[in-house]
Amino acid sequence: MKRTGPWIACAALGALAGALLAGPAARAQGTANNAASIPLAQAASNPDNWAMPSLNYAASRYSTLDQITAANASQLEPAWTFSTGVLRGHEGQPLVIGNVMYLVTPFPNTVFALDLNNDGRILWQYTPTQNPEVIPVMCCDTVNRGVAYGDGKIILHQADNTVVALDAATGKVAWSVQLASYKDGATGTEAPLVIGNKVIVGVSGGEFGVNGFVAALDISDGKTLWKAYSEGPDNMILFNSQTTSLGKPVGADSSLKTWKGDEWKIGGGDTWGWYSYDPKLNLLYYGSGNPSTWNPNQRPGDNKWSMTIFARDPDTGMAKWVYQMTPHDQWDYDGVNEMILADLTINGQQVPALVHFDRNGLAYVLNRATGALLAVHKYDPAVNWTTGVDMNPSSPNYGRPTVVQQYAPGSRGVNVNYTGICPAALGSKDEQPAAYDPETGLFYVPTNHVCMDYEPYPVAYTAGQPYVGATLSMYPGPGGYMGRFIAFDPVTGKTVWDIHDQFSDWGGALATSGGVVFYGTLKGYLRAVDAKTGKILYSFKTPSGIIGNVMTYMHDGKQYVAILSGVGGWAGIGLAAGLTDPHAGLGAVGGYAALKDYTTLGGQLTVFALPGS
Amino acid sequence: MKRTGPWIACAALGALAGALLAGPAARAQGTANNAASIPLAQAASNPDNWAMPSLNYAASRYSTLDQITAANASQLEPAWTFSTGVLRGHEGQPLVIGNVMYLVTPFPNTVFALDLNNDGRILWQYTPTQNPEVIPVMCCDTVNRGVAYGDGKIILHQADNTVVALDAATGKVAWSVQLASYKDGATGTEAPLVIGNKVIVGVSGGEFGVNGFVAALDISDGKTLWKAYSEGPDNMILFNSQTTSLGKPVGADSSLKTWKGDEWKIGGGDTWGWYSYDPKLNLLYYGSGNPSTWNPNQRPGDNKWSMTIFARDPDTGMAKWVYQMTPHDQWDYDGVNEMILADLTINGQQVPALVHFDRNGLAYVLNRATGALLAVHKYDPAVNWTTGVDMNPSSPNYGRPTVVQQYAPGSRGVNVNYTGICPAALGSKDEQPAAYDPETGLFYVPTNHVCMDYEPYPVAYTAGQPYVGATLSMYPGPGGYMGRFIAFDPVTGKTVWDIHDQFSDWGGALATSGGVVFYGTLKGYLRAVDAKTGKILYSFKTPSGIIGNVMTYMHDGKQYVAILSGVGGWAGIGLAAGLTDPHAGLGAVGGYAALKDYTTLGGQLTVFALPGS
Repeated sequence: MKRTGPWIACAALGALAGALLAGPAARAQGTANNAASIPLAQAASNPDNWAMPSLNYAASRYSTLDQITAANASQLEPAWTFSTGVLRGHEGQPLVIGNVMYLVTPFPNTVFALDLNNDGRILWQYTPTQNPEVIPVMCCDTVNRGVAYGDGKIILHQADNTVVALDAATGKVAWSVQLASYKDGATGTEAPLVIGNKVIVGVSGGEFGVNGFVAALDISDGKTLWKAYSEGPDNMILFNSQTTSLGKPVGADSSLKTWKGDEWKIGGGDTWGWYSYDPKLNLLYYGSGNPSTWNPNQRPGDNKWSMTIFARDPDTGMAKWVYQMTPHDQWDYDGVNEMILADLTINGQQVPALVHFDRNGLAYVLNRATGALLAVHKYDPAVNWTTGVDMNPSSPNYGRPTVVQQYAPGSRGVNVNYTGICPAALGSKDEQPAAYDPETGLFYVPTNHVCMDYEPYPVAYTAGQPYVGATLSMYPGPGGYMGRFIAFDPVTGKTVWDIHDQFSDWGGALATSGGVVFYGTLKGYLRAVDAKTGKILYSFKTPSGIIGNVMTYMHDGKQYVAILSGVGGWAGIGLAAGLTDPHAGLGAVGGYAALKDYTTLGGQLTVFALPGS
Repeated sequence: MKRTGPWIACAALGALAGALLAGPAARAQGTANNAASIPLAQAASNPDNWAMPSLNYAASRYSTLDQITAANASQLEPAWTFSTGVLRGHEGQPLVIGNVMYLVTPFPNTVFALDLNNDGRILWQYTPTQNPEVIPVMCCDTVNRGVAYGDGKIILHQADNTVVALDAATGKVAWSVQLASYKDGATGTEAPLVIGNKVIVGVSGGEFGVNGFVAALDISDGKTLWKAYSEGPDNMILFNSQTTSLGKPVGADSSLKTWKGDEWKIGGGDTWGWYSYDPKLNLLYYGSGNPSTWNPNQRPGDNKWSMTIFARDPDTGMAKWVYQMTPHDQWDYDGVNEMILADLTINGQQVPALVHFDRNGLAYVLNRATGALLAVHKYDPAVNWTTGVDMNPSSPNYGRPTVVQQYAPGSRGVNVNYTGICPAALGSKDEQPAAYDPETGLFYVPTNHVCMDYEPYPVAYTAGQPYVGATLSMYPGPGGYMGRFIAFDPVTGKTVWDIHDQFSDWGGALATSGGVVFYGTLKGYLRAVDAKTGKILYSFKTPSGIIGNVMTYMHDGKQYVAILSGVGGWAGIGLAAGLTDPHAGLGAVGGYAALKDYTTLGGQLTVFALPGS
């Protein structure tokens, strides 16, 4: 008849979490400290785990797990599910390390540690205290793309730009630092990346005039080791005389020269996408976003280094090479999508390649050691703003896209409606990451097939307020559909197969050694697809639309596949924020209005497996 | 490149919904009006449907569908899922009529019509406009126990006590009436019942001094045909000289005589449970709740007709018989739980029985034609507030429970802590309905095994404010667990088997002709159990804790089983409302505090089926 006090349960739980995470040695000692000591390299080298946001430093999202095959995937079924208790858009993916899964919700960014031995029992949860004033400062829903792991800590980049490290065993705060202020428009949405003793983090706020940066924080205490901006003088952007673009030194003041006056200070180039790392070259890769205001005529010049692929030394932050994909952006084609590091054979030569499917509809292949441009192809046939990139090294426009003026907002002045532009501002692909399967040699890319009308207008800057200056409408591309999931060869530009979807495919892909690729649809379907043929092997309607990224792990000798549902993100902003004006949500609401006939809000994890124990 | 306007999608949708609901005849005409014309009797007679909240008028929750059997239930798997977009407690169950599923969320009480031909595509949705001020007026979470169907309309009893009829084909409002005001503490949570041209509705507000009533509304226009209160003069409670209790006329002023002064006017007896109906006897059955304030010394007398089983003529509202189970309630043992109508063999005689598992821990068997008391047994061995009911017809206490004064709050005055009382205020069973399988002859009852300490104190009445007057603590019953799912014979009082659960079993049961019974747990598990042996055949962790009631239907020749997840209700009020004081939530928060280690908020439907198409 005695009451069970909650403190009893908590104490038991803490010990349990420690034991689970630590393995036998720590279980014997029973302390959280030891439990938390498994190094990231060790965790990541075990294919049973999913220890980094993109699975590995190469961001390949290719797992060597192979229990689920093209022959048996049709037998998949949900194994267990978990509600996050939070509505709005669930981008990103959980981590799995040992017997524990870690996931983070959209604002308020609750982090859960779930016990894989007990159908996702909650080992601990942590909800930061954040001012809800940050919500309207998030351009494209209150998303978060995942936590990172390292040094026994779970690293969370909160919406309000606080970065916090939680003890992985207990959820207790190890350290917490404020990187920038949402009051100035700077928010946090991306998944950090841990490299050695450094936590790499970026910033969101391209629609609020925030000068983007990447920072390296000391994982032991959160102190900033270096901070590299996207725009500004060389000592802010961490460029030196060795920094090259397309094989040539960029020279001094490479950014400042491409901006009018001080506009660079509110020039965007934010860094809210994915980070990759090549340990051998010791280079960190990421892309920068749009040059803030969507009225291009307000910011003449190339607006460097917005829309740029960066290769930096993670120890110093110094840029080794850069490549600007979309100089003087007129479409909001942020360059932040993932950089997949793959060793490809090109013209019979093995090349350390970087493959990037950009918002602008072009797939780029570069030599990631040198930044040399190897191939550029449209991966969405709808792309019409450019005829392609000038690949002639002796051309003055070498490496620049040839712009079709008809589809270039601003080219005929402002307050003009530029119609029929493809892709739309949210790009042929947005943050939803692709996967690379070295066995098929193909990239599996969830894409948007969406076009737009775009009317730029002058806008004044006020700190912390939207700094957009364009009205948009989005709508399905040719053929009347909005989503294509493609198997693509970026070297040849060949689409091997594609699957059309009514709405954008805004969920990230997973490739596996079983010959099965996975992705989720905005209607909420988790799909398993034959990597070779594109045949849909399995399809399950999860509770809400999927904008999360499929991941896989092995537990107790069984392969699981997990996906976060929770419609939202830019494509689902109408549902997520209750917007109805078709021009709202930066133009997305109209195009995706019919989503309400298929799904509604929710935040759930669904974990799949083959039948049997 | 044309945009698809949302109005185009909507127009197409309306036509589709009409076609789906109507069958060939209406499809030819294509009008929503004809589509909506399938009578309730016809819908309910088709075992493929689930056309009433409790499946049938008998409230047996026994389906004759038998594809899922004890032999194959272990192969069950989720077929599709649906997020409701609403957090907090999801009690109740969907309806299925033809190819359409109808479900309602907790506040704001969104109603969804889902297309069973398309994995739950949303045919229409309706969200009423309600003042959120109603939320704190809901004692035990913002729950709603289901919509009703009749006359081509879906009937919703909103939280704010508006009753609205929606065209089942289109979701358009046919009529809307305000029954009572939440400003006076009166809210709506129960599932209405349609009998002929009448909609039977009740009222919630026992903790706010609301005098309970049942009303019959004209299903064509919502006009009140009659209204019968639980307390007051005979013309308010609709009693006449033929109204009996235990076979004898109750006489004039049967209610008023049992109250001090005007206390009856704020005397509770609310009617938020389930309604049954016997078409042959033309009698409506339901129970009334607690006599408002939980300080019993403030309301001397039997407080009739709170805590009472009512049998009324649905045409006039006149009471045929009544039986008060817990006179002068000292524990909050509301009598609102479902009345299951079953023809039982008792002492060799076939009896038209009414079986009721009351909050007070006693299972009652009455002759539903006469109100004669046939059997009373404890169905939870923990029950200690009574030694049982006096079954001697010649005793002056015939039909009354013998109270154990040690466990009777108020018996030693107020501001005294009465400890170790079983069951707790939320009863050995609350609203979670039982199921009756005529093949096994057993009742399958989800129960609470919870005890309490109870300290009554004086409280003043203010309209619209809580009128409680007691501080409670709840905790597990003997054995340290809080839930028992039992197979019970109410005639003999024998428990044939039971399954213990850490937390209360707050999800309603389903019995099927396949020999499988189903229920859900607060941790979120949907379970299929062998009706004969109690063996758990299948268990699946749904996204959130289950307080909903399992239902089944047949679609395209395949049997499905569906359950709403969404932790909350009284048992889960700590999670649902973010309460942490262990005495909060009318005493429930402390006892259920450990729930946070297992589940979090969410509203989802999970639909199960056997593999294969």
